[in-house]
Amino acid sequence: MEESFVPFRGIKNDVKGRLMCYKQDWTSGFMSGVRILAPTTYIFFASAIPVISFGEQLERSTDGSLTAVQTLASTAICGIIHSIMGGQPLLILGVAEPTVLMYTFMYNFAKDRPELGPKLFLAWTGWVCVWTAILLFLLAILGACSIINRFTRLAGELFGLLIAMLFMQEAIKGIIDEFRVPNGENRQLTEFLPSWRFANGMFALVMSFGLLLTALKSRKARSWRYGSGRLRGLIADYGVPLLVVVWTAASYIPSGNVPKGIPRRLLSPNPWSPGAYENWTVVKNMMQVPVLYIIGAFVPATMIAVLYYFDHSVASQLAQQSEFNLRKPTSFHYDLFLLGFMVILCGLTGIPPSNGVIPQSPMHTKSLATLKHQLLRSRLVTTARECLGNNSSLDQVYGKLQEAYEGMQSPVHNQEPSARRLNELKDSTIKSASSMGNINAPVDESVFDVEKEIDDLIPVEVKEQRVSNLLQSLMVGGCVAAMPLLKKIPTSVLWGYFAYMAVESLPGNQFWERILLLFTAPSRRYKILEDNHATFVETVPFKTIAFFTIFQSAYLLICFGITWIPLAGVLFPLIIMLLVPIRQYILPKFFKEEHLQDLDAAEYEEAAALPYNLAMDTEMGSSASFADEREIFDGVITRSRGEIRRMCSVNLKGSSEKPKKSFLKSFSDIGYNPRVSEMRGDISPRLGGRRPFSPRTTEGKPSHLGKHM
Amino acid sequence: MEESFVPFRGIKNDVKGRLMCYKQDWTSGFMSGVRILAPTTYIFFASAIPVISFGEQLERSTDGSLTAVQTLASTAICGIIHSIMGGQPLLILGVAEPTVLMYTFMYNFAKDRPELGPKLFLAWTGWVCVWTAILLFLLAILGACSIINRFTRLAGELFGLLIAMLFMQEAIKGIIDEFRVPNGENRQLTEFLPSWRFANGMFALVMSFGLLLTALKSRKARSWRYGSGRLRGLIADYGVPLLVVVWTAASYIPSGNVPKGIPRRLLSPNPWSPGAYENWTVVKNMMQVPVLYIIGAFVPATMIAVLYYFDHSVASQLAQQSEFNLRKPTSFHYDLFLLGFMVILCGLTGIPPSNGVIPQSPMHTKSLATLKHQLLRSRLVTTARECLGNNSSLDQVYGKLQEAYEGMQSPVHNQEPSARRLNELKDSTIKSASSMGNINAPVDESVFDVEKEIDDLIPVEVKEQRVSNLLQSLMVGGCVAAMPLLKKIPTSVLWGYFAYMAVESLPGNQFWERILLLFTAPSRRYKILEDNHATFVETVPFKTIAFFTIFQSAYLLICFGITWIPLAGVLFPLIIMLLVPIRQYILPKFFKEEHLQDLDAAEYEEAAALPYNLAMDTEMGSSASFADEREIFDGVITRSRGEIRRMCSVNLKGSSEKPKKSFLKSFSDIGYNPRVSEMRGDISPRLGGRRPFSPRTTEGKPSHLGKHM
Repeated sequence: MEESFVPFRGIKNDVKGRLMCYKQDWTSGFMSGVRILAPTTYIFFASAIPVISFGEQLERSTDGSLTAVQTLASTAICGIIHSIMGGQPLLILGVAEPTVLMYTFMYNFAKDRPELGPKLFLAWTGWVCVWTAILLFLLAILGACSIINRFTRLAGELFGLLIAMLFMQEAIKGIIDEFRVPNGENRQLTEFLPSWRFANGMFALVMSFGLLLTALKSRKARSWRYGSGRLRGLIADYGVPLLVVVWTAASYIPSGNVPKGIPRRLLSPNPWSPGAYENWTVVKNMMQVPVLYIIGAFVPATMIAVLYYFDHSVASQLAQQSEFNLRKPTSFHYDLFLLGFMVILCGLTGIPPSNGVIPQSPMHTKSLATLKHQLLRSRLVTTARECLGNNSSLDQVYGKLQEAYEGMQSPVHNQEPSARRLNELKDSTIKSASSMGNINAPVDESVFDVEKEIDDLIPVEVKEQRVSNLLQSLMVGGCVAAMPLLKKIPTSVLWGYFAYMAVESLPGNQFWERILLLFTAPSRRYKILEDNHATFVETVPFKTIAFFTIFQSAYLLICFGITWIPLAGVLFPLIIMLLVPIRQYILPKFFKEEHLQDLDAAEYEEAAALPYNLAMDTEMGSSASFADEREIFDGVITRSRGEIRRMCSVNLKGSSEKPKKSFLKSFSDIGYNPRVSEMRGDISPRLGGRRPFSPRTTEGKPSHLGKHM
Repeated sequence: MEESFVPFRGIKNDVKGRLMCYKQDWTSGFMSGVRILAPTTYIFFASAIPVISFGEQLERSTDGSLTAVQTLASTAICGIIHSIMGGQPLLILGVAEPTVLMYTFMYNFAKDRPELGPKLFLAWTGWVCVWTAILLFLLAILGACSIINRFTRLAGELFGLLIAMLFMQEAIKGIIDEFRVPNGENRQLTEFLPSWRFANGMFALVMSFGLLLTALKSRKARSWRYGSGRLRGLIADYGVPLLVVVWTAASYIPSGNVPKGIPRRLLSPNPWSPGAYENWTVVKNMMQVPVLYIIGAFVPATMIAVLYYFDHSVASQLAQQSEFNLRKPTSFHYDLFLLGFMVILCGLTGIPPSNGVIPQSPMHTKSLATLKHQLLRSRLVTTARECLGNNSSLDQVYGKLQEAYEGMQSPVHNQEPSARRLNELKDSTIKSASSMGNINAPVDESVFDVEKEIDDLIPVEVKEQRVSNLLQSLMVGGCVAAMPLLKKIPTSVLWGYFAYMAVESLPGNQFWERILLLFTAPSRRYKILEDNHATFVETVPFKTIAFFTIFQSAYLLICFGITWIPLAGVLFPLIIMLLVPIRQYILPKFFKEEHLQDLDAAEYEEAAALPYNLAMDTEMGSSASFADEREIFDGVITRSRGEIRRMCSVNLKGSSEKPKKSFLKSFSDIGYNPRVSEMRGDISPRLGGRRPFSPRTTEGKPSHLGKHM
């Protein structure tokens, strides 16, 4: 995305780009049939549950003028609007923690002002929203989003980890509070006797850890050994939501002399109770707000604008990382513009506005990638097996694979590139073979640890459509009606779920993986390569990695610390944005250019758009019978993260990357990448020959890496 | 071991055999230096903790005439005697659940008899022990143990699983009781208020699951990615004991208004308190027991005798399975004889007798095998890597490996067999290569996924010595003094530990693995092969496996059910022994001979003795620097379990197995086993070529197995 600040150009391009594929966004979604429900429910819970407990948080800190009903409503409304009119349907909207902090701060300010007070609070926030919206419009129109290329991994992943920390913090705080008397409660109730409080706390520990552990296990269900493939697939897809229900049910087991208040459950008002609607009509009161405060509203507005500008963009960015090889164009400007409207809408109806959320958005893309992966995979695996069966030569195998892959492209798709790919393919294979020093060896069977290698070969692709997003928003809306049901969920389950989300957001975050690397035994560092082709481990000396990571961690802790400061807390987006100039002007003074390249590639950005095609997606919809083939996938997203980008930045440096190529990159790369082959050679030319693609080959020689670092 | 019932012959042979290596039992133990402490502490906890809580159980059911002090004393004394004078130093002695059941039954009988009553109870049990001892002497002298070959896997593993179930039952009962008021306690105490009982129960859940999960994780520490190899090794070796301490410490965190009684802790008498000694002098009262009862004591005596005969023998058997490739002779007869003396000793001092225990005994052997494995492994791995480094031919690699292996044998060891092995080796390799259909391919690098394959090659060997057993017995003795300290352990930690022991005893139990197989998705059945070369999966049709397993499970449940019947419970050893004739005369009517062979090899027995030699063990002692190399081992025992035996029963059917050969078996087997090679061929001749040894190769074709089953 080139940086241009010509008014409206960004928005225009975005709209043009998205209109092209708008119809297809729906058709492909519906074509994938019931299976779309897996990512839908998964994301529904991931966005509903936090929103509910943020609502609880707001209720406490705004003396009940805002509740879970409002947060849910906002999430639902904005979600529906965005999924229909929004540019980037992968982006999930919701009321986020920062927004909650903001509103708390504003309430504390407003409630003590006689001119405002609690009753005009919402009216005033209405004005804040108006100002915010105006600022967002300006930003969008003037193409502020085009500098988003400068938001490197450094900032994005740091923000991601910060959010994870906030979630984990919520979880821990929540569990600790289970041992305490919640403020504003009658300390005389039986359930608040020391004994019952202790009991409740211990119960909460059991429940939350129970949910956390079982949820994490269930996500791995596909690779379980027991149960039929169908069952395992089901658990992997719906396990987490299911477990929330299961543990809620379990919370009803202790009966008898255990008071009703144990375990504690959600306490949100019935949306149908009178007065629950008051704030829908807040717009009437807006004129009663004194002018001075209308103007003053501009101050918090700027903060929120900055926050949303950053948060919304980074969320979109993380949901559309190049590793996902998206085929449809992005639309940062237009979406920011649309966000402006939604902010006004929320402001006038007196509900807190929503914006793009982390980690839900990337979670959404991941789950859609899982949906798509299995189809490609099962095709290629079967093909490869056939070939090996009638032991064909290396060329034949690749040829067949290539065909199969082509076969899944639309027929109308022009054949030139595919032909070219086929050649590239052969060359690269020969090259790689020779680089290993044994051209004559029948490489094929060693190349094809079928299941494994195919997984390395398959380009990550995502089921891009609007249906899942729309459905989950509708379901969130349904929650408002289902509030009486939701109240049955024990708060302890929420805390467990928060912890789960924090943990789920970590894998694939290279910052996190580098932190782990610091604690990895030198002899084990090569294992990092196994899980995710973090090429920087090979190319950057360990000292540098460590230094870079420690700097980043320190910065993270600062940001985290700031969120604790009640008022200044809302500044943390500014601190994170500060990383952009730091990365651009200061870091290069301390790190070698190529090292920064590898650790924090500046071209890190949303994938360039590709000519998507209907036929491809029809393919997807059609074959729905490979549930069992998906199992190994869980790892793949993570493994391939960053790899494709890195690889190309090694062979075709600078060339704008066409993700579809990744299919061959994984072939061609090794042949070209001097580092990799050299390093393999130096373990053992033959061992190296065994698995050109998988970094596993280094396994044999941890000592080597040790030396390297 | 041939079946001969010539009086004293068995004992004589045993004594002769063990005397040969008696001195070496000590020297080798001491030579292995501090590292011997790892298995020692591991087993110490494994035998002390259950004994303590069995003591508690006894205290409740015998109105305090027997306590943990007595059970600990018995375990310590018998342990010390056995480790010094016993024949099989791998066998761990202790007061076992069955003994506790027995004593409970006898107490219930005695306490209501005016002539006996509680005060003569111990005196009477003294007589029971005398009778028991006499019976044991007879059994030992008449060579009853020589029929032990007929105790097949069927009986042994069923018994093992039964014990595991009893342990798990204890754990579950224990946790449930944490919610209840223990009988004989004052219900008025604060900690027994409903609220605190509930709190205590929940706390117990947290503690016990905490211990269970962390303990299981810690055993895998060697394969962790984080922390230095030394640290990981330390955790893997001492983690479980350490965790007991850690969780005990954690149990003191909740303070403030939590009553002292929460969580509940061990309640055992201070051994120094007056009267704690009374029963040491029980022998004085034995004459006061009426003659009628002295004679009547014969009835329970027979039961106990049968129980000990079976329990002691099976424990020795499981601790000395052929898979462990022990080099020193067994001594069933002599040990049973010695047990007789110990039973008398315990009887006269009024403490419950000890006998060989499961799962501690096999756990002991396993931990000693871990100790030994690493050394062999690191040697071979380094050798193999060198070879691959200067890409030598297949022969060269194997040659080098062979040399390395020989190198670790004593120089005095005659070279003839080693030479023969070397040839066998070449042949088998050629054979296997050709059977894969690609002689010319440079098989070596593909054969050597170094780390993995070496692990498959290394014969399991055990550090056979007496030191660890003696030390752990002494430490158990120390517990009696440390009772005040032990009382700090929360009972909930005990329950967690019980569950841990139950789980730990499962892997490697083929019966258990077959049960799992029943629940394994057909497409995943091949995975069983990965973990443990359960060849029967390949050779026996699934239906048969299922039928056999279901029969065995039903039988297990019957035995388990019987233990619930208060009095008849003590009969369960009889029921299990009934399996021996059933296996021999009835099962053959329902199953094909070769299937029975594969599922429950009748030659399943303790390893045949091998000429052990000092030099070998000096080797062991000397190289103590490979902590990091051990990691993959945890799996190995399990993987190789049963394999070696099976393999030989495939190629050299019927030939009495010389475990040392196993080194080559793993080579030669594939070449000979028609099934395996055929099945590989039918996946893909080349794929097959890749890893002649690892069943992994089947990965490619689950469908094949599916068909097979």
